[in-house]
Amino acid sequence: MSGSTFGTFFKISTWGESHGKALGVVIDGCPAGLPLIEDDIQEYLNRRKPGQTKISTPRREDDLVEILSGTFEGLTTGTPISLIVRNTSQKSRDYSEIASYYRPGHADYTFDQKYGFRDYRGGGRSSGRETIGRVAAGAVAAKILKELGIELLAYTKSIGPVEINESAFDKGAIRQTSTCMPDYNADQKAVEYLASCMAEKDSAGGIIECRIQGVPAGIGEPVFEKLDANLAKAIMSIGAVKAFEIGDGCRVSAAHGSSNNDSFVSEKGTISKKTNHAGGILGGISDGGEIIFRAYVKPTPSIFQEQETVNKDGENIRICIKGRHDPVIVPRAVVVVESMAALTLADAMMANMCSRISYLKGFYTHRN
Amino acid sequence: MSGSTFGTFFKISTWGESHGKALGVVIDGCPAGLPLIEDDIQEYLNRRKPGQTKISTPRREDDLVEILSGTFEGLTTGTPISLIVRNTSQKSRDYSEIASYYRPGHADYTFDQKYGFRDYRGGGRSSGRETIGRVAAGAVAAKILKELGIELLAYTKSIGPVEINESAFDKGAIRQTSTCMPDYNADQKAVEYLASCMAEKDSAGGIIECRIQGVPAGIGEPVFEKLDANLAKAIMSIGAVKAFEIGDGCRVSAAHGSSNNDSFVSEKGTISKKTNHAGGILGGISDGGEIIFRAYVKPTPSIFQEQETVNKDGENIRICIKGRHDPVIVPRAVVVVESMAALTLADAMMANMCSRISYLKGFYTHRN
Amino acid sequence: MSGSTFGTFFKISTWGESHGKALGVVIDGCPAGLPLIEDDIQEYLNRRKPGQTKISTPRREDDLVEILSGTFEGLTTGTPISLIVRNTSQKSRDYSEIASYYRPGHADYTFDQKYGFRDYRGGGRSSGRETIGRVAAGAVAAKILKELGIELLAYTKSIGPVEINESAFDKGAIRQTSTCMPDYNADQKAVEYLASCMAEKDSAGGIIECRIQGVPAGIGEPVFEKLDANLAKAIMSIGAVKAFEIGDGCRVSAAHGSSNNDSFVSEKGTISKKTNHAGGILGGISDGGEIIFRAYVKPTPSIFQEQETVNKDGENIRICIKGRHDPVIVPRAVVVVESMAALTLADAMMANMCSRISYLKGFYTHRN
Amino acid sequence: MSGSTFGTFFKISTWGESHGKALGVVIDGCPAGLPLIEDDIQEYLNRRKPGQTKISTPRREDDLVEILSGTFEGLTTGTPISLIVRNTSQKSRDYSEIASYYRPGHADYTFDQKYGFRDYRGGGRSSGRETIGRVAAGAVAAKILKELGIELLAYTKSIGPVEINESAFDKGAIRQTSTCMPDYNADQKAVEYLASCMAEKDSAGGIIECRIQGVPAGIGEPVFEKLDANLAKAIMSIGAVKAFEIGDGCRVSAAHGSSNNDSFVSEKGTISKKTNHAGGILGGISDGGEIIFRAYVKPTPSIFQEQETVNKDGENIRICIKGRHDPVIVPRAVVVVESMAALTLADAMMANMCSRISYLKGFYTHRN
Repeated sequence: MSGSTFGTFFKISTWGESHGKALGVVIDGCPAGLPLIEDDIQEYLNRRKPGQTKISTPRREDDLVEILSGTFEGLTTGTPISLIVRNTSQKSRDYSEIASYYRPGHADYTFDQKYGFRDYRGGGRSSGRETIGRVAAGAVAAKILKELGIELLAYTKSIGPVEINESAFDKGAIRQTSTCMPDYNADQKAVEYLASCMAEKDSAGGIIECRIQGVPAGIGEPVFEKLDANLAKAIMSIGAVKAFEIGDGCRVSAAHGSSNNDSFVSEKGTISKKTNHAGGILGGISDGGEIIFRAYVKPTPSIFQEQETVNKDGENIRICIKGRHDPVIVPRAVVVVESMAALTLADAMMANMCSRISYLKGFYTHRN
Repeated sequence: MSGSTFGTFFKISTWGESHGKALGVVIDGCPAGLPLIEDDIQEYLNRRKPGQTKISTPRREDDLVEILSGTFEGLTTGTPISLIVRNTSQKSRDYSEIASYYRPGHADYTFDQKYGFRDYRGGGRSSGRETIGRVAAGAVAAKILKELGIELLAYTKSIGPVEINESAFDKGAIRQTSTCMPDYNADQKAVEYLASCMAEKDSAGGIIECRIQGVPAGIGEPVFEKLDANLAKAIMSIGAVKAFEIGDGCRVSAAHGSSNNDSFVSEKGTISKKTNHAGGILGGISDGGEIIFRAYVKPTPSIFQEQETVNKDGENIRICIKGRHDPVIVPRAVVVVESMAALTLADAMMANMCSRISYLKGFYTHRN
Repeated sequence: MSGSTFGTFFKISTWGESHGKALGVVIDGCPAGLPLIEDDIQEYLNRRKPGQTKISTPRREDDLVEILSGTFEGLTTGTPISLIVRNTSQKSRDYSEIASYYRPGHADYTFDQKYGFRDYRGGGRSSGRETIGRVAAGAVAAKILKELGIELLAYTKSIGPVEINESAFDKGAIRQTSTCMPDYNADQKAVEYLASCMAEKDSAGGIIECRIQGVPAGIGEPVFEKLDANLAKAIMSIGAVKAFEIGDGCRVSAAHGSSNNDSFVSEKGTISKKTNHAGGILGGISDGGEIIFRAYVKPTPSIFQEQETVNKDGENIRICIKGRHDPVIVPRAVVVVESMAALTLADAMMANMCSRISYLKGFYTHRN
Repeated sequence: MSGSTFGTFFKISTWGESHGKALGVVIDGCPAGLPLIEDDIQEYLNRRKPGQTKISTPRREDDLVEILSGTFEGLTTGTPISLIVRNTSQKSRDYSEIASYYRPGHADYTFDQKYGFRDYRGGGRSSGRETIGRVAAGAVAAKILKELGIELLAYTKSIGPVEINESAFDKGAIRQTSTCMPDYNADQKAVEYLASCMAEKDSAGGIIECRIQGVPAGIGEPVFEKLDANLAKAIMSIGAVKAFEIGDGCRVSAAHGSSNNDSFVSEKGTISKKTNHAGGILGGISDGGEIIFRAYVKPTPSIFQEQETVNKDGENIRICIKGRHDPVIVPRAVVVVESMAALTLADAMMANMCSRISYLKGFYTHRN
């Protein structure tokens, strides 16, 4: 059963293993006429590269993307866009040991149960490198959305106990800090916290927040294809994400209707909401306000402490994972969250185009 | 764009408005040979009926289901199962006023923005009555899962600030208490809390928890069709759910790898986990442990306090919603959560059948 | 696995057995704002009713449709449209015998092989009555297409050896003749031919042709979702259709490129083709010309001659089918062909709306 | 809207243009554990290569496939299989002229109408080279089917007026003759016929027949996902195919029920049919007999005669197409037909696995 395909209109199929020859994605359903060159995509891929800082792995990942099809003279043609990133620095010799046992917190055991065996090199398909296809496609989706006036902004909201200060929000810091926090002060504290985690051979989790501006009201389909339901699926499909919330999210369970309802208000003919507890979506359909959601990311499961587990022969053993691993997944996952949100929204924008018969009539009457 | 269809193998299409002639669902993809009569489905529908207690609406909803197709001599035939529930007690006269304005916290505004107008009677398609189709189909999915040794159990974990006491967990209380709490003591406190909310013309939210036992390891597809991603979509597609978490969920963001990882352990040839922080799913694939997730439900948006909003002419107005409304959505949503989980899992169990070539060969060699 | 669902944007799920309680369809994805009342649908259903003539069964089928959801004050709301036709005149007692054996040319044997048993009353789900859902949904699709300036016209091209005379084509005759032929003279000959078939306890096949006018150039998606490929699937999914051809169809195999190519010609700024061997589709995409295709329909398998077959105990037996059966399927299938073409085209028209980025930008800039 | 994705369980996404950097396919849904190396796929790709004979283009196409993902130590892993074929011998300079006009019988005009412009180099995505992805994926599907005891055999049945002699059927000839005919005598006549076409600067069409053996009864889903309907779509999606028929196909329109019905017969407990007018499918479900269908292929539209057409400025012009073009498409399309049939059937075999609840129970009880 296929599981690597996402979207209905703007459909992507990602492929590739951590230590295979390459990773990539096929985008089937990109509209024609969009300016697209490799730099557009490389910019996003660079954001998921490990940095040079203390909190990220010293592995060198030069993930250079190549467009193999779907563009002509710098424009998309409407046909499938095939994007490829060759694996260059992966070495299989580091991973011979983990072939024999099941790492706690990883998908080794479940892959074996499902498929009978697994490509154990670097986690194979369950590696974080799987997200290369998502991010490459997400860059294209974000470019479409930008044409429609929609901007996405994801960032690290917290790492372990260190949370950003909303009043100190500095958008420019997101791509400057090694934590992707929009707050230099919090970044510094988080880096210190991560250093202490590393000193204890441990790892940390965190929260990623994403804000989407410019989405017109009316996007999302009622019942099962609600915009927030599809965002939830998109974000929860990212490895290590264990919770998703929109707007006030978890807090609504302890709220009252009187405090949770957002009043509508009309100003000079424009309807908006006084507050945004709903996070920009009502009944699964965008309400014209900012969409805001959060992803809760678990700590890196690969830690250097001794751990108990079972090997393939069913024996209880104690292991010490080797190799190079980030003490926190969050900063590199920020662009993945943004990409998945872009993919979801691009699809929803296309789906909405035939919501009214007057739209179809207008389209076929006036399009040329 | 279709939004009322859910599932790939076990596919359902729900239909119907709050005050239309009827509501229902078509199940396309139910295996043949399953014993199925109306009582199997009615039992689930009865669980979403308003009770006779103080915390639920006095509306009388005799939602009697009729099987129109897909069974023969008490067994499913493999062809579509059409289920219908006639609307009997709905009266349109109560709803004439809300046609003119947008209720805060409801989908009135977003439906108008999307479709140009709406069936305003009782919320139309965005009413809680929309879940009748989900629950009717969920009953069939749960019956399939039971044949496969899988049992689902959803219940109210909290209402407002009142949470169940895990050590007092009493499964039998779930269907006995008006709150669907597995804890008579917490139920009593929650009922008192809701009475105070009603006295203040206000409403409350809460948390629904769902446990699934008997799921074999290996269910769920990597990357986008992860079992937890699909559960997230299914649950977030329920109106009023604003957050979804699996296992430790939100708490992972503040955890360490050393505390969050579940160690594998082997006992007499059986591999299991010592703990279950993951909630039974690793890398999107079931690990053989109990699956546990939670839905965070917002307070009923229909409250009797005066609220600010905008009418269809764009004028700022103050409204007082009339009618009969539950002060809390949670208890009636419990069976909806259970149903959506059942639908998701039934689909995933079918999807998994062709994960290995040896499964296909075995199937076609030995099936008869 | 679901098989009764058709379409991506304009998605339908049909349900119902020949002798069950009812048959129907759920349309998920109809744009809002389309005027729709039961008469619009009943007109199509009446066209598939058996007539009062010598060539059709004397069974009385009052297939009255009821709209259960999806419209409000005479307009579609964008939510699922549930259509139901109650079975009234079906009697199960006529079908007790066929439960025991496999009728040649029918799906009795293959249903048993697939599902282990079958609803044998009147053919169950494999009955021609299954098409009620298709036609009811097709009526809605045709109404959408009419709004977009597209008209479909299906008719009987031949019955057995009797073919219509193209030069005598009389559109008005299609709904006047019992054969649905656009040629009164051919109709008379066909009726005589069918009388001779009936005298010999035999049945006849025929050809249905469908012409679609007003389709703009550019509809259909390259590679697998070619417009003609989807038409082929739609038409071949109708029971008894054994071949599908577009434009010159089968004849192309003996043609030369020089005679088969359609030259383009420009007149006053409008590009068209001098001929239409292609049938209005090039590379799977409409070329702005008339779309023309044909379905080849097999003779009614239920004949009154003695036939050899096998019973459920695996014994070779001789049978004589009883009951009331049309000597030809073609006339009643004409509206089914038209309906399936309408469903296919409505879906393709919607799919095309996001083929260019300029379309998306124009839509979201100017739609209001 | 995506159009380059095919299949539900065994899902493929093809990509690539005639003169782009590469062409390929991603297979999402291949079961794990299938032995697969590049040679398995190369064998199929070689069959669509132009030969060295008089009837095929002298272009040199070394279409060497590379497996980029989805296998490990010679076995499929259950994750997406990415296959790539680099374009090596394509030269863009030959195609500068056709950028300016619309070739009759090609998709130049319709692509421009749909997308606003096109990659005109060698036909871009509408080139016959698009089928590389289909054939590469088809090789994998055929390998799965072989494991299940299913064999496909496609061949040229006719070219222009030259048809094979059924009584001289020689399976071995198919891969020996330049026409892919299973009849050396007919091959020789066809080659002569094609020589005469070329002498007249013209081209020819033909018929491809495909036989599938070993399909168990019960494959295919009723109503819209009938096995023959899906085969029709698959085959009609191949460029240049204008008609599809199964079993007796077009001939059924002139047949009688008494001659068209296939009698069932039981021999030593095995049920089969005395004849096979149905082509192995009844009611859309395989009946256990040989599946046989035919594709009618149009003459190569690129001919060297002068033709009338229109240029992009809307002027009527006369053109002479240059370059290297096969006088007939049929022989190279044989393996494409076989591949599309394999893809369709592999999907249908997987879909059937959950047709009975007893299958699911048996699977989850006994699979290990």
